[in-house]
Amino acid sequence: MAAIKSPLTEAAQKVTGDALQGALVDLIDLSLVAKQAHWNLTGRNFKVVHEHLDEIVDLARQGQDDVAERAVAIGVNPDGRVRTIADRTALPQLEAGYLDDDKVVAAVTDVLGQIIGRFRERVAATDEPDPVTQDLLIGITAELEKQHWMFQAQT
Amino acid sequence: MAAIKSPLTEAAQKVTGDALQGALVDLIDLSLVAKQAHWNLTGRNFKVVHEHLDEIVDLARQGQDDVAERAVAIGVNPDGRVRTIADRTALPQLEAGYLDDDKVVAAVTDVLGQIIGRFRERVAATDEPDPVTQDLLIGITAELEKQHWMFQAQT
Amino acid sequence: MAAIKSPLTEAAQKVTGDALQGALVDLIDLSLVAKQAHWNLTGRNFKVVHEHLDEIVDLARQGQDDVAERAVAIGVNPDGRVRTIADRTALPQLEAGYLDDDKVVAAVTDVLGQIIGRFRERVAATDEPDPVTQDLLIGITAELEKQHWMFQAQT
Amino acid sequence: MAAIKSPLTEAAQKVTGDALQGALVDLIDLSLVAKQAHWNLTGRNFKVVHEHLDEIVDLARQGQDDVAERAVAIGVNPDGRVRTIADRTALPQLEAGYLDDDKVVAAVTDVLGQIIGRFRERVAATDEPDPVTQDLLIGITAELEKQHWMFQAQT
Amino acid sequence: MAAIKSPLTEAAQKVTGDALQGALVDLIDLSLVAKQAHWNLTGRNFKVVHEHLDEIVDLARQGQDDVAERAVAIGVNPDGRVRTIADRTALPQLEAGYLDDDKVVAAVTDVLGQIIGRFRERVAATDEPDPVTQDLLIGITAELEKQHWMFQAQT
Amino acid sequence: MAAIKSPLTEAAQKVTGDALQGALVDLIDLSLVAKQAHWNLTGRNFKVVHEHLDEIVDLARQGQDDVAERAVAIGVNPDGRVRTIADRTALPQLEAGYLDDDKVVAAVTDVLGQIIGRFRERVAATDEPDPVTQDLLIGITAELEKQHWMFQAQT
Amino acid sequence: MAAIKSPLTEAAQKVTGDALQGALVDLIDLSLVAKQAHWNLTGRNFKVVHEHLDEIVDLARQGQDDVAERAVAIGVNPDGRVRTIADRTALPQLEAGYLDDDKVVAAVTDVLGQIIGRFRERVAATDEPDPVTQDLLIGITAELEKQHWMFQAQT
Amino acid sequence: MAAIKSPLTEAAQKVTGDALQGALVDLIDLSLVAKQAHWNLTGRNFKVVHEHLDEIVDLARQGQDDVAERAVAIGVNPDGRVRTIADRTALPQLEAGYLDDDKVVAAVTDVLGQIIGRFRERVAATDEPDPVTQDLLIGITAELEKQHWMFQAQT
Amino acid sequence: MAAIKSPLTEAAQKVTGDALQGALVDLIDLSLVAKQAHWNLTGRNFKVVHEHLDEIVDLARQGQDDVAERAVAIGVNPDGRVRTIADRTALPQLEAGYLDDDKVVAAVTDVLGQIIGRFRERVAATDEPDPVTQDLLIGITAELEKQHWMFQAQT
Amino acid sequence: MAAIKSPLTEAAQKVTGDALQGALVDLIDLSLVAKQAHWNLTGRNFKVVHEHLDEIVDLARQGQDDVAERAVAIGVNPDGRVRTIADRTALPQLEAGYLDDDKVVAAVTDVLGQIIGRFRERVAATDEPDPVTQDLLIGITAELEKQHWMFQAQT
Amino acid sequence: MAAIKSPLTEAAQKVTGDALQGALVDLIDLSLVAKQAHWNLTGRNFKVVHEHLDEIVDLARQGQDDVAERAVAIGVNPDGRVRTIADRTALPQLEAGYLDDDKVVAAVTDVLGQIIGRFRERVAATDEPDPVTQDLLIGITAELEKQHWMFQAQT
Amino acid sequence: MAAIKSPLTEAAQKVTGDALQGALVDLIDLSLVAKQAHWNLTGRNFKVVHEHLDEIVDLARQGQDDVAERAVAIGVNPDGRVRTIADRTALPQLEAGYLDDDKVVAAVTDVLGQIIGRFRERVAATDEPDPVTQDLLIGITAELEKQHWMFQAQT
Repeated sequence: MAAIKSPLTEAAQKVTGDALQGALVDLIDLSLVAKQAHWNLTGRNFKVVHEHLDEIVDLARQGQDDVAERAVAIGVNPDGRVRTIADRTALPQLEAGYLDDDKVVAAVTDVLGQIIGRFRERVAATDEPDPVTQDLLIGITAELEKQHWMFQAQT
Repeated sequence: MAAIKSPLTEAAQKVTGDALQGALVDLIDLSLVAKQAHWNLTGRNFKVVHEHLDEIVDLARQGQDDVAERAVAIGVNPDGRVRTIADRTALPQLEAGYLDDDKVVAAVTDVLGQIIGRFRERVAATDEPDPVTQDLLIGITAELEKQHWMFQAQT
Repeated sequence: MAAIKSPLTEAAQKVTGDALQGALVDLIDLSLVAKQAHWNLTGRNFKVVHEHLDEIVDLARQGQDDVAERAVAIGVNPDGRVRTIADRTALPQLEAGYLDDDKVVAAVTDVLGQIIGRFRERVAATDEPDPVTQDLLIGITAELEKQHWMFQAQT
Repeated sequence: MAAIKSPLTEAAQKVTGDALQGALVDLIDLSLVAKQAHWNLTGRNFKVVHEHLDEIVDLARQGQDDVAERAVAIGVNPDGRVRTIADRTALPQLEAGYLDDDKVVAAVTDVLGQIIGRFRERVAATDEPDPVTQDLLIGITAELEKQHWMFQAQT
Repeated sequence: MAAIKSPLTEAAQKVTGDALQGALVDLIDLSLVAKQAHWNLTGRNFKVVHEHLDEIVDLARQGQDDVAERAVAIGVNPDGRVRTIADRTALPQLEAGYLDDDKVVAAVTDVLGQIIGRFRERVAATDEPDPVTQDLLIGITAELEKQHWMFQAQT
Repeated sequence: MAAIKSPLTEAAQKVTGDALQGALVDLIDLSLVAKQAHWNLTGRNFKVVHEHLDEIVDLARQGQDDVAERAVAIGVNPDGRVRTIADRTALPQLEAGYLDDDKVVAAVTDVLGQIIGRFRERVAATDEPDPVTQDLLIGITAELEKQHWMFQAQT
Repeated sequence: MAAIKSPLTEAAQKVTGDALQGALVDLIDLSLVAKQAHWNLTGRNFKVVHEHLDEIVDLARQGQDDVAERAVAIGVNPDGRVRTIADRTALPQLEAGYLDDDKVVAAVTDVLGQIIGRFRERVAATDEPDPVTQDLLIGITAELEKQHWMFQAQT
Repeated sequence: MAAIKSPLTEAAQKVTGDALQGALVDLIDLSLVAKQAHWNLTGRNFKVVHEHLDEIVDLARQGQDDVAERAVAIGVNPDGRVRTIADRTALPQLEAGYLDDDKVVAAVTDVLGQIIGRFRERVAATDEPDPVTQDLLIGITAELEKQHWMFQAQT
Repeated sequence: MAAIKSPLTEAAQKVTGDALQGALVDLIDLSLVAKQAHWNLTGRNFKVVHEHLDEIVDLARQGQDDVAERAVAIGVNPDGRVRTIADRTALPQLEAGYLDDDKVVAAVTDVLGQIIGRFRERVAATDEPDPVTQDLLIGITAELEKQHWMFQAQT
Repeated sequence: MAAIKSPLTEAAQKVTGDALQGALVDLIDLSLVAKQAHWNLTGRNFKVVHEHLDEIVDLARQGQDDVAERAVAIGVNPDGRVRTIADRTALPQLEAGYLDDDKVVAAVTDVLGQIIGRFRERVAATDEPDPVTQDLLIGITAELEKQHWMFQAQT
Repeated sequence: MAAIKSPLTEAAQKVTGDALQGALVDLIDLSLVAKQAHWNLTGRNFKVVHEHLDEIVDLARQGQDDVAERAVAIGVNPDGRVRTIADRTALPQLEAGYLDDDKVVAAVTDVLGQIIGRFRERVAATDEPDPVTQDLLIGITAELEKQHWMFQAQT
Repeated sequence: MAAIKSPLTEAAQKVTGDALQGALVDLIDLSLVAKQAHWNLTGRNFKVVHEHLDEIVDLARQGQDDVAERAVAIGVNPDGRVRTIADRTALPQLEAGYLDDDKVVAAVTDVLGQIIGRFRERVAATDEPDPVTQDLLIGITAELEKQHWMFQAQT
């Protein structure tokens, strides 16, 4: 079974692969957190926030696929298995049960803020080793920051 | 914060809620397993299996949303958080690293076979307490069995 | 002028026809109630509730057509004339004039809850005499319960 | 709860509001009459007339929404509740049971002819007080007269 | 060459497989009968009936695919070969040559009525052994009965 | 360089041209005001009002194009340059910085109310000199009044 | 064979019918003139003018259908037969053979200018007898004047 | 002004050009005849025949464009001016006034039959001189014969 | 009941009608053979061949309709009844039960090769009597030969 | 009223915010300049340039929204009010009245050239402080330079 | 590795294969020539000619695929490698650097004229050996001649 | 004839222009190589690889257009003539005749690997002189590397 030959040097591949795997963990758990809130939401703004959360899910799912396929394209195996995500995620987790809309807006704002911090580090880290990966991470960061503004604006 | 008032009796709600939460765990992990294989696949049939796995992902994601929203519609909170899925999933997990196409086809056939077994139990269990939920579970079972046949036919 | 020949026995046709005619009355008045609220609504959540009410109208209009055409397919004449609906409807009626958004959300939640109760009785009643009609009623009940949850979650 | 401030003088608002409420009653009952015929139709031209009646339903439903939203836009509450329509409608009502296609074509031609007469009066009445409403009523009249010709041509 | 492993017990598989194979024969010949009439039709209602027959063809072709793929999904080989259909079909066959529109409407009404009778038996037979298959057969029966009403209404 | 030959008399062209140029100034500044609010908005209803404002932008941009092209079609040069709009606009201007959602709703209601007043004057002024232009202005007034109702209903 | 019963008085029907028949002659010949130029065009601006002429054809064909169907809707038989058009058209006719682009632009500008003159007379003539027809003629005039400006601007 | 240089010899161009000009006259008048019937039609089959006639109009208009553009492509100027069509058409002309549906069906069948006769001669005539034009004429003949069958089948 | 009047001489009609009826038998059985393989397929290339076979089904069904409607357009009744196809088909028939993908590819290549041989004879036979039918048969042959290459290329 | 919390340091936010506000002024006035030319254009290339200018308008409007939303996403309030644009724009302004096509092409080429110069400075300025904003500005620059080439190529 | 079995005799295959390979060389180089002009174009008609050239590219690319796939379908290997095209092309080549619009129009007219000459020879050559290929070549010739007229008309 | 004025300094223009011209040669030949394989392919994976190669063709054609238009936008004439590509291409060339699927997958993997090496050099070279061009080259590299992984994964 052939390994994928990387267009990068080993060192560049290591740094870039770590950035992509970290992004993958963030984005998979972001999609699960947003769905959990989407389903258990209550409150006067239910309808709007319920639908807004699915924009986060779409962003996170598209981002997952892009970073994971970028990883394998540079010869690094992405790991998106449930145990891996559960063990490595740094996202604050939601309570079980019904979730009030105001608290969800605050929580998502917080989660996005933390993920953005890590993405900006990944953008910096990949500048030298792989500008192609950096460009992908910049694009996802732009979308995360746009959503961060929109959730924050409702608080 | 108002709980959702169920159209079911408490007993019916309990049985139905358990069936839906079980289905949710199966379907979320199915989507993660299929994506893991989609990304790390190798082998002569790469292109076909890579694309076929995304049909499983679509089925599993649509099914997740349907069962979770059905749960809350009967007044039961679905739990789709990563830790919950990691702890409760009964799906055999994939190895890390590259995955050979033949092995993936066999593994997905096996995973689908196991999930189908549990869905058939849920269909039976919900017949009396909630025919509306049963109808939803029958629909998902039909799709799972169709994919089960198609993966199995390639082995 | 030929009557439509029913695929059902006379007894089964009677029970099923009654269930369908009852559903027709509920769904036609539901569409009128939802439009009345859609037009006369006021309040801070005007835009969201205004658009959400049109989802109820769409559901109710599609449902009307399905139950009425199912009735005639089993040889029973559906009656959707305005006098019939006005005389037989069991739905609580809205006040004339402007309608506050919170009150509309509560009223629609209540209306849907009552209709769902009657649909569940119709599902039970048609199980033996006509599983084809039952399947249609189950499908509409699922949609009504989904909307019931979404309106209730905003209260 | 704020009333909508009208762009019209009180007198103009009164005349225009009456015209719009009258149009609303005509159009809601037109949609119910057309659906009743759509469902209970029989005869050699069943398929064509069955589908043609849905064009009337579409026209009537679009027209309802336009006149009702125009009413509230000028500060008048539209009343489209079932009891109101049943009590005020001037449309000749259909018999219960199966309806022969030729008779349906004649009945719809007659109904449209009567509604057109009232719409032409409303067009005249709103010329001075509100040309914006008049323009809307002219547009609906044009469509009613087009359908009137097409039903009449088949008799 | 691997046989498809059935999710059903052998007994359930036998009953369900027979129901599906019977449905397949009915639906393939229905599509051929409807096409034969579509091509050789004459009469004043030619255009409408010509196009209406293609709705039957679409229904029958979609149904064929669904029942045949359901059969193989439960490990039973569907047989849709021309000799099989010719030998086993129970449908009354059309005359060669031009077909008058009134006679076609009557013949299709009759054909649909007979098929519906057999589908209702299959719905009953599969209730216990396989509710997933039953649900599929109920869906096709609903469509057949809708078309049965529409053809019958023109006679 | 050829001037466009007008289908109107000079006097009619003057009155009509003034009405159109006035409408152009209103509509261009309306689009800029709505975008300014769209970008700087905050508050619990952020998402809904943010998107609602883009409906105003679309209405205003489509209207601009229509009135400007109508002006040149009657031989009058529309002037939509930034200095012209800044000098002639009669719209109350927004503050710099963040804008609270409730205040935005009130401000847009007010802006639309003022523009509607001027459009109704233009409709009256063009009745004699150019019914073609009047018809265009009536159409835009209808849309402005619909939005005016919808913003007002949220206050 | 039934004549269509007009919603207009006989006098109003006469005036309105004449306006519509005149418009029909203009629009049918406009479509033929524009196609003749579309086919026989030459010159440096061939591609642009060739495609622009098809916008005229579309406008003229849509307009034909609208005025002819409006005529029959008020009980007047439209006459669009080739001999009628040839005998009654007032449009300046094109030369046979190749047509230079500049001359075509000038000719179309001239033709549109003449038609517009007659449409403005028809708008005035129908104001009292039939505002519904007037509204249709105003709409077509607006489009003709827009194209008139665009052709004129290129000369 | 440059004439278009033909890919054909002068003799071939002459024969082919005559065939195309003849086809153009037939197809333009066919579109006018079909529209005249479309507008003035009455009878029980009004709706079906009214819509069927627009299929003829579409066929005739698409064919016109194709034959005229083919003519100029081989250096022959097509002449589609109204006077030319009126003088050269060989189509039997319709009566003024209302047209009974049965008579229209018979008349269109007859018109199509005559045009087909001439197209078959043109197909034969162009076989040697220009197979490219012949292929175009064969395509149009196929469509005319399909419509001829469908109109004939209703008589 | 009127027979369709043919645009061909009796002799030409006979030859052409035979060619079309022969093509109809080939194409109907081709669609049944391809569906039988589509359903019962197994093997490593299952997914690709399963989908590829549906391209054959589409080609065969479109071709059936075209040749049958062409037959009736020239006054010949197509016969596509199941007994006729079963008795006259010359296609090698598939075994019952599961079908290995390699064998299916070989079998379809063989079936297409045989059909192509007969279509080339029909193209030759119709050259004189009816170039319109010949053009249709050429078009279907081109598609059959393209699929023949693509199946053959996989062997 | 909460300010948006920036993902940038204060210094980076200042530089980036200035670049975005400058871009906003350029792009809003570009859209107004292009529309002014779009409306008042004359000359032989009217149609092409008229439509080409709307591509500039689309580019400028999309760009406005992107830079303004990026500004608020980093916690800087964009200012797009008409007075601000009028006072700060550096774009050469068009004359009032008709505008010759050649002059418009030259003017737009010049305007685009100047804006591009400023965008390249903004790209350089944001490289360090915010690569996400830089990436957005690079994308807009690419489109501006493409249009600059296309306008320049026509001079 | 299996060669594709041809439906043609060896002699017919040779003649047809040569015609198709010749067509392939013409069409590949036509697409490259048109793209070269598309990119390097200047002049007042830049925009129109730039876009018109892409119609040639589309025609040439679609044609390439069709002739190459037809070649392999008859068992002849198409050769579209760059060296083959460079060595065998008979098309006059463009100069490097900017290309004036008038010269491009003249050059494309010339190129198309030459290719058309060779296509007409190929149409004649394939008449006997393979009418299926001939039909394909006729279709491409028709499109080439249409474009030849349109380019020529602008000179 | 005006040269396009570059937004770059002469030195930057030189480096950037060379990178773009090199990319153009790679991408044009890549599209020809992929088409040659698409047409002459054989082997068990024919269908999948045949279609996959067209994704490469699409990528290469879109890339060609983007790099060539970017070149002219910075004032450098792209050269995509067949002789230029044949002389300068560095791509390993395919054999004539049938091509086995496994060998094609290996060859395309190799070709993509070589092109990616050169694109990474061009990304590095344009970083300073033109970040706009660099961003375009990064985007194309990302797509090439994604395809490189997908072809490699099948080997």
